[in-house]
Amino acid sequence: MSNDRMERVLEKMKEQGITQFLVSDPSGINYLTGIHVVPMERLFALLLRTDGHHTIFLNYLYFVKDTPFEEVWFSDMDDPVDVIAPHINMSEPLGIDKNWPAGFLIPLQERYPGLKTVLASWCLDGVRAVKQPDEIVKMKKASQINDAVMETVSGWIREGMTEKQVSDYIDAEYLNMGADGNRFTTIVSFGENAADQHHEPSAERKLAEGECVLIDMGCMYQGYCSDMTRTFYLKKADPEQTRIHDLVRAANEAAEAVIRPGIPICEIDRQAREMIDKAGYSDYWRIRLGHFIGQTDHEYGDVSPNNRNLAEPGMIFSIEPGIYLPGKFGVRIEDLVLVTEDGCEILNKVDKHWKVIGI
Amino acid sequence: MSNDRMERVLEKMKEQGITQFLVSDPSGINYLTGIHVVPMERLFALLLRTDGHHTIFLNYLYFVKDTPFEEVWFSDMDDPVDVIAPHINMSEPLGIDKNWPAGFLIPLQERYPGLKTVLASWCLDGVRAVKQPDEIVKMKKASQINDAVMETVSGWIREGMTEKQVSDYIDAEYLNMGADGNRFTTIVSFGENAADQHHEPSAERKLAEGECVLIDMGCMYQGYCSDMTRTFYLKKADPEQTRIHDLVRAANEAAEAVIRPGIPICEIDRQAREMIDKAGYSDYWRIRLGHFIGQTDHEYGDVSPNNRNLAEPGMIFSIEPGIYLPGKFGVRIEDLVLVTEDGCEILNKVDKHWKVIGI
Repeated sequence: MSNDRMERVLEKMKEQGITQFLVSDPSGINYLTGIHVVPMERLFALLLRTDGHHTIFLNYLYFVKDTPFEEVWFSDMDDPVDVIAPHINMSEPLGIDKNWPAGFLIPLQERYPGLKTVLASWCLDGVRAVKQPDEIVKMKKASQINDAVMETVSGWIREGMTEKQVSDYIDAEYLNMGADGNRFTTIVSFGENAADQHHEPSAERKLAEGECVLIDMGCMYQGYCSDMTRTFYLKKADPEQTRIHDLVRAANEAAEAVIRPGIPICEIDRQAREMIDKAGYSDYWRIRLGHFIGQTDHEYGDVSPNNRNLAEPGMIFSIEPGIYLPGKFGVRIEDLVLVTEDGCEILNKVDKHWKVIGI
Repeated sequence: MSNDRMERVLEKMKEQGITQFLVSDPSGINYLTGIHVVPMERLFALLLRTDGHHTIFLNYLYFVKDTPFEEVWFSDMDDPVDVIAPHINMSEPLGIDKNWPAGFLIPLQERYPGLKTVLASWCLDGVRAVKQPDEIVKMKKASQINDAVMETVSGWIREGMTEKQVSDYIDAEYLNMGADGNRFTTIVSFGENAADQHHEPSAERKLAEGECVLIDMGCMYQGYCSDMTRTFYLKKADPEQTRIHDLVRAANEAAEAVIRPGIPICEIDRQAREMIDKAGYSDYWRIRLGHFIGQTDHEYGDVSPNNRNLAEPGMIFSIEPGIYLPGKFGVRIEDLVLVTEDGCEILNKVDKHWKVIGI
């Protein structure tokens, strides 16, 4: 089997100087082959070789047939190391996927102490990070649905509703609008709950006047994800809220303004981080600016000071600065952006200015 | 911090001869400490030491405070190896959790080639496998709800319904019955779909007379899981279906009949496997007989020919033989069983004989 995605991965393997790469991330294997397996704790892997001969390791439990690869079938009764080892060239480094569990890796290393294992995820993740035209079409549509549902829900929210009520409404609207459902637990946080960036919606917490409403949501559309955050205020906003909101919005816009091919990803982060640091809020935003996204909501690659890779046309990632004040409130403003030939396209169009709702 | 669970883990570490163990499974850390974090791709770990001094590694993003451990806080801007390494005794073996991703493990190994990394999951998983009285109460209740919903749904199913309709009904009934929802995607498979053991319910596939209806379902109750499978037949069952069903039921019952403290887990598997093998169906059942279960639906430990550990009172696992005939149908009969002082208690009470429904 050969396709453009696979060829690009083999090319990156050659750049990294490895001849064999054990791809074990199910979403990575799906991206390359279309084969969908949920292996849970069982072994599932595709051994790619730069000579074009590839081997797939399949448990009899998986409902897969007629792959274009050498198929190695095994059962729950077989030892995973015994299954893989005969197919590895022990005298060459073996590329390993970032998510491969220690439960497989350590026994392999112990039994073959001469085998050099190296991280090779970027060979695949670097290819996935650059979206192809058909993927871009789906991701734009997923974000259009996300925009439409955000507009609808922000007009629907009223005082006294619970976080859970709002998140349930969003999940239902996704289905009404043609999405395949949410991609992650829809985050709806009122007031001080918004300071917990991964707060789960409560069925008890009711919305009161003057509180912020932080909504972080994403849906699936034909296998691709959206992800956006907006922060609103119920009936009124106080000066601290609007000041923080304007600062976060400015940080979001400053980062988005510099995105273009060739800029180091860490430079994008720096625009937002310096603005928030200078305003004295560095202790209240200590996470990355964004993450890559595609078939899964978090794909490999941070938009952070650590990522020195350069932006390339076709990359899609989130820009989501925030300020989180424990016990008080939190503001996050998140868009997905697509790097274009000469800049970027912001995939989310919902207005980012502070806005009072529920009136 | 010290509690009974932690003490039992430290005891097992001493048995294995390790002084430090980096626990990274979020459900394992939750089991030991009550701390709930969903780290996704970020580092999250608890370093246990047999001297009683423990260290927890926390990203600023996690909403955790006042732990009884030494807390090491880090941000997305820090390198995980830099965060962990200063706290490891490099001259002693480091126990690693089975799920720790290669993306953390390989860089640690590369930077500290003298450090010996060993799998130590059993120190924790072996403790989790033996349920305490309060856990047993919750797991029994989760299975009681599962039984009640299985009885209800089997009386409700009618010709022409889709798999998705049935699975949605089950999920709604869980909530009506006081469970916290399903634990995994409820499996409802009609006819030939039942030969795919992890089939996802289809919104198109309609049930017809004479087809099997395989339902594999589990709910959460106060943090603990249930898991049961029954196979029914719509309006009528043909001789091949009833013969296969009786064989699978006999295999299920033969395995359950031998469960008692001290029996090797692999011996339990053997009872069912020999029966199915002798009947000539070994090619149609090539997976483990069961799995351990508790706070997650699949906990460490197979009921398979490879597991030579002995059954202990308090262990809870599934017994789920099946026969899967591609293109035709599949039968699986699954119970959860609790090992008692002198035998076992079968936690699922729904009748296992073949039964015609929808009339």
